[in-house]
Amino acid sequence: MQSIGYYQEVISKYFATATIIKEPANLYDPISYILSLGGKRMRPVLTLMAAEIFNTDCHEALQAAVAVEIFHNFSLVHDDIMDDAPLRRGNQTVHEKWNINTGILSGDAMLIMAYRHFEEYEPETFRSLAKLFSKTALEVCEGQQWDVDFEERTDVTIPEYLKMIEYKTAVLVGAAMQMGAIVAKTSQENCNLIYNFGLNLGIAFQLQDDYLDAFGNPETFGKQVGGDIIENKKTYLYLKAKEFAQPEQAIQLQGLFSAHPEDSSDKIAAVKEIFNATGASLATQKAIEEYTFKAFKTLEKLDISQDKKAALKDFGSKLMGRNV
Amino acid sequence: MQSIGYYQEVISKYFATATIIKEPANLYDPISYILSLGGKRMRPVLTLMAAEIFNTDCHEALQAAVAVEIFHNFSLVHDDIMDDAPLRRGNQTVHEKWNINTGILSGDAMLIMAYRHFEEYEPETFRSLAKLFSKTALEVCEGQQWDVDFEERTDVTIPEYLKMIEYKTAVLVGAAMQMGAIVAKTSQENCNLIYNFGLNLGIAFQLQDDYLDAFGNPETFGKQVGGDIIENKKTYLYLKAKEFAQPEQAIQLQGLFSAHPEDSSDKIAAVKEIFNATGASLATQKAIEEYTFKAFKTLEKLDISQDKKAALKDFGSKLMGRNV
Repeated sequence: MQSIGYYQEVISKYFATATIIKEPANLYDPISYILSLGGKRMRPVLTLMAAEIFNTDCHEALQAAVAVEIFHNFSLVHDDIMDDAPLRRGNQTVHEKWNINTGILSGDAMLIMAYRHFEEYEPETFRSLAKLFSKTALEVCEGQQWDVDFEERTDVTIPEYLKMIEYKTAVLVGAAMQMGAIVAKTSQENCNLIYNFGLNLGIAFQLQDDYLDAFGNPETFGKQVGGDIIENKKTYLYLKAKEFAQPEQAIQLQGLFSAHPEDSSDKIAAVKEIFNATGASLATQKAIEEYTFKAFKTLEKLDISQDKKAALKDFGSKLMGRNV
Repeated sequence: MQSIGYYQEVISKYFATATIIKEPANLYDPISYILSLGGKRMRPVLTLMAAEIFNTDCHEALQAAVAVEIFHNFSLVHDDIMDDAPLRRGNQTVHEKWNINTGILSGDAMLIMAYRHFEEYEPETFRSLAKLFSKTALEVCEGQQWDVDFEERTDVTIPEYLKMIEYKTAVLVGAAMQMGAIVAKTSQENCNLIYNFGLNLGIAFQLQDDYLDAFGNPETFGKQVGGDIIENKKTYLYLKAKEFAQPEQAIQLQGLFSAHPEDSSDKIAAVKEIFNATGASLATQKAIEEYTFKAFKTLEKLDISQDKKAALKDFGSKLMGRNV
């Protein structure tokens, strides 16, 4: 197995050289643009890594990895329209740089292009990859819809929230890894296990994202700390605080989460105080640990060498330590 | 082979019974809605018909036919957003009944759902269907982009216009038929020929749509006669008129096509007069005949019985006579 940096390099090199020069330019330029903005390329890296875990050269999984990355970027382009987001990776979003119609159509084309990358594989592998991909892609849409629905609802439960982040974020992490396993033609058992490893690590990662949004280090978190609080987002922290709150705290929290003050620093401080006082912070940390533990536990059952298990665990630890 | 009505019945029955009852409702309700609005179901009918042409029970091609119909409806949902269209098949469009975000996300889900219907087939057939589907779907996106681009351009050529309608409309007709042929496991040669039959018939049909928009019978055309003229759409008729126009006619046509009068009846009459006087009407009729002839010519080379060729020709004639 190689280092994360090595796999990132393989992916970056692919997107740097395989530039999409195709007509009509108004359809393909936005696609080249969003794919050139980079990012950590974590999902395709996982596909490459999984292939090597199951004794297959990572380059054989490159087309599947590219499909995963194109799909991820498709979902960003359409989500950014829905969220009316001006920026992505520090640059203008596609619908801002062009327009909404371009964002819709170029996104559609990306979803189709993702499927085409599976065509490099022989029929059995192609079918397995495309089936997993479709199932996952539909779940991502469902997760996005739950997320939209939750904005309007005041009765979201913790299990519903966990299902939402599982579908919106974690299934693609699991699928990315399973695709590497499929290309490597390992057993169905191994395929399921590596999927569950990715899935649980994905949930842990997303819960940690919720946690760090409030309590992270502004210099290393990468996003604006307190962003979820400013936007009154019902994260795991918020839902747990609501669950644990004394009547007075509940009223205070509700009051804070209906306000949009111009200077939000007092609001952020007050909400964090409630997150701590109610025990929501601790409960969130515990949940992160549990899902990470669940992911690591899955590794034990994998039919691979001990050093490969250690490498996956090391990757998981680095990811959760945000050192990737 | 059965009648068109029989195949339409098979498709209608499928969509009437296979209602999509799934959560989240805000994602799947709009999908059930648009699929329930009906329409002629011409594309999936072609898939069923093609299977029987190649000696396979049409029910074996049902899942492929359903994929084609779902894809077609996906493209309508997203195109209607881009065109800001309030009505589809006499009912509210999805983004009007719900909102734009719902239209985007439900459309995305439909594109993915279409692929899932190929999963019923064994690996080789699955791969052939999905490959043809992806190629076609991407061309439809490209056709839509050309169509959008052409609105802003004044130098669109006839070959460019033909390419646009080929991609936006005709490739899906060809692909719908080829999918039936793929399910029937006929020869590659037959697959190519039936695709070309559908493709050329599709181009002829679209050119006829341009023609009937100006010269059709308001009682049978189904759309508002003169609609393209009201919207200053650069159809085949318009491009041919521009090509053939004397300097004076060209100036007159340009003037008419930059106006948006409240009562458009005079404008429509004047434009139709120019279409006739320049010879554009005749040229369009000739082009329709040529593409129809090309489609029928393709039939001769098909390796099927004479009565099946006759049935396909009869279908083509009925379609072009708008008696389907």
